[in-house]
Amino acid sequence: MTTLEKGGLMAAEIAEQPGRWRALLAGAGAELDGVAAAVRAYDPHTVLLVARGTSDHAALYAKYLVEIRLGKPAGLVSPSTMTAYGARPDLRGVLMLAVSQSGGSPDLVRSVEVARAGGALTVAVTNNAASDLARAAQHHVDVLAGPERAVAATKSYTAQLLALHQLLDRIAGGDGSAAAPLPDLADAVLASGDAVAQLATRYRFAQRMVTTGRGYSYPTAREAALKLMETAYVSAQAFSAADLLHGPLAMIDPQVPVLAVVADGIGGAAMAPVLPRLHERGADVCIVGSRASGATIALPPGAPEELSPLLEILPFQLLALHVAVDRGGDPDAPRGLNKITETL
Amino acid sequence: MTTLEKGGLMAAEIAEQPGRWRALLAGAGAELDGVAAAVRAYDPHTVLLVARGTSDHAALYAKYLVEIRLGKPAGLVSPSTMTAYGARPDLRGVLMLAVSQSGGSPDLVRSVEVARAGGALTVAVTNNAASDLARAAQHHVDVLAGPERAVAATKSYTAQLLALHQLLDRIAGGDGSAAAPLPDLADAVLASGDAVAQLATRYRFAQRMVTTGRGYSYPTAREAALKLMETAYVSAQAFSAADLLHGPLAMIDPQVPVLAVVADGIGGAAMAPVLPRLHERGADVCIVGSRASGATIALPPGAPEELSPLLEILPFQLLALHVAVDRGGDPDAPRGLNKITETL
Repeated sequence: MTTLEKGGLMAAEIAEQPGRWRALLAGAGAELDGVAAAVRAYDPHTVLLVARGTSDHAALYAKYLVEIRLGKPAGLVSPSTMTAYGARPDLRGVLMLAVSQSGGSPDLVRSVEVARAGGALTVAVTNNAASDLARAAQHHVDVLAGPERAVAATKSYTAQLLALHQLLDRIAGGDGSAAAPLPDLADAVLASGDAVAQLATRYRFAQRMVTTGRGYSYPTAREAALKLMETAYVSAQAFSAADLLHGPLAMIDPQVPVLAVVADGIGGAAMAPVLPRLHERGADVCIVGSRASGATIALPPGAPEELSPLLEILPFQLLALHVAVDRGGDPDAPRGLNKITETL
Repeated sequence: MTTLEKGGLMAAEIAEQPGRWRALLAGAGAELDGVAAAVRAYDPHTVLLVARGTSDHAALYAKYLVEIRLGKPAGLVSPSTMTAYGARPDLRGVLMLAVSQSGGSPDLVRSVEVARAGGALTVAVTNNAASDLARAAQHHVDVLAGPERAVAATKSYTAQLLALHQLLDRIAGGDGSAAAPLPDLADAVLASGDAVAQLATRYRFAQRMVTTGRGYSYPTAREAALKLMETAYVSAQAFSAADLLHGPLAMIDPQVPVLAVVADGIGGAAMAPVLPRLHERGADVCIVGSRASGATIALPPGAPEELSPLLEILPFQLLALHVAVDRGGDPDAPRGLNKITETL
């Protein structure tokens, strides 16, 4: 039995991703056009995002798109200000995007209700059109990932990235077509999974890890760390490469492997001053991404930088799965977790 | 020679804090009144914050104050969108607060220049009135911490928290007087440092740690983790207690001590559902904060919740110092770091 067979649901859901993206690109256009038109008519001055866990990393990706592509200020909401502290902010002119796999977390539903009462235009991006969150918001975008049964989110994450890209690209006046090559590129990444399996043996006994990236690749580093924490029980810490230099660098030593995401593009180029600083600290650095950067895990060229996070996360999903299985864990049902996390 | 004597500059700067706060409360009123009046006249619809490292945690604290006290949307800017990706956002009606100890990091200066050109009202909050950042912004608030020579920021952090509180309280229509008891309360916390020294021996060999808090105490958890990383070289991870349940909980085991910040107030009450989940995972939990919560490190009562982060961080500064010295490190000059981090 291979690791991927032992990986069960999580392995199957990782493998489903290119097909799910094809379905979204083929079938979601009308819904996306409608929501994008409503947002363009509303013409928000600010975009807020609200999410938890894996979905928070998709929201962070969307924040970069909003800042760079829409040229609007953006922020990730701290839900407790509205749910626990009772803040009732004036959100006229604000677009709030709520991102959730299940659409079931009470604090997100409440945040959307408060935002809507405060004058915001609210859009829920979920994997469940019948969820409370989808109903609470004025508009809904279905990420069409299909039922996700493994506790660790994989296909719902990349479906969120793709749906958010498709929505924000349309709001910016595009037609989303830049994403057309992505499913085939993902097939190529998943077909070359052997290199990841080999890498997993290297980290079999690592207790600590650092992941890092800049720009569009920073959400990848965050999500990669979460997958390694929740399935392989590694103390994995993610840093924007700039923040890494503001203190955490001191903790790096040869016992803390560093996984650096280096995309072809501006974010990858901004990693250049960081890598030598890591080598000075004796770090064991593994690069995921651009072939030109000498990546250990090289991704196929052809994706625009703003879409590269969809491909970058795939090797990390596989890595977390392999390390988890090698350690005797059950990636489908990590200890201490449930599929829907109810936080208030 | 005691640990605090061996702690050198960092120990001395930790001890200076109550005096620095008294100086700020006594001497900064006119400057704060002036900046607050300018912000009130401008009446921003949104507040953006930009910062790196320790200052980013002060900015996160300010974000909670903006959302809760001002009832306005707030966001932490990803500086790379403006510095590396060339975003030129429309920031008319936006207040941008840039927070920095040195005021010298080029990416923050550039972010403020771009924001100002995009129509934002810009305010720099720094410890150096002659800095590039202070000059780049329309307004400046001096946190009056005095020269900080240890690489790990301590007194500049709490001075930032206090200056941001004093500014935002005035913008909200207050007079800042709620902070008057804080210096005396800080004296009491620092005088009871023995309990922290004892706690440090318990963590002498810990490689991994988790810090957690909710609401106003979440920035404390973030800054506590950074101090432990940069001075004691611990792989310390900070989570909002809600996010901790969305995945990272699986990584907790009896080998990963958890330091939980539990304030007297709403944020502390929101920790109640989280602590039993940690105990289920066999976690070694140490509570810092509210005496009523059974804290190992109890803080004196008397601070309003929104000011409790000024007191909460003090035991963590001492803990990082003690663990660093016990491990033979030099907390004044951690390996791999400089006082001013120049990121582009």
